[in-house]
Amino acid sequence: MKTSAKFYHAGCPVCLEAETAVTRYLDTAKVDLEVVHLGSAKNRLPEAERAGVRSVPALVVEGKVLHLNFGAALADLK
Amino acid sequence: MKTSAKFYHAGCPVCLEAETAVTRYLDTAKVDLEVVHLGSAKNRLPEAERAGVRSVPALVVEGKVLHLNFGAALADLK
Repeated sequence: MKTSAKFYHAGCPVCLEAETAVTRYLDTAKVDLEVVHLGSAKNRLPEAERAGVRSVPALVVEGKVLHLNFGAALADLK
Repeated sequence: MKTSAKFYHAGCPVCLEAETAVTRYLDTAKVDLEVVHLGSAKNRLPEAERAGVRSVPALVVEGKVLHLNFGAALADLK
């Protein structure tokens, strides 16, 4: 069974660089990846916060948050 | 042709959590991953610094550094 993962970003340059790496090298045989733009989908902010995301870009997989470099604080996207 | 990637860590809990995610979900058909423990292989510190690694855990792929959360500053491993 595939694991589902969420990549949260806000379209920033740091986000895009991380997105390229994640979408290119994540094993799609093992992971279903959803890319969520928190700048445009602000209704997803509470979900990201609950998952432990404090800044973007971030990848949430198996309940773990990996903050990938630092693009913007979640608080600044509200 | 495969891309080579390096995962730098220092055995810290944050490092291990990131290592689990990286080794589990990176597409090994596309990437050759080398895991480097900078705590024990201090001779690799200059190479990591040159690649732009400022803290561990970090993944270097295609000349880009992805700092994955924050375990320890590179300066503290010297």
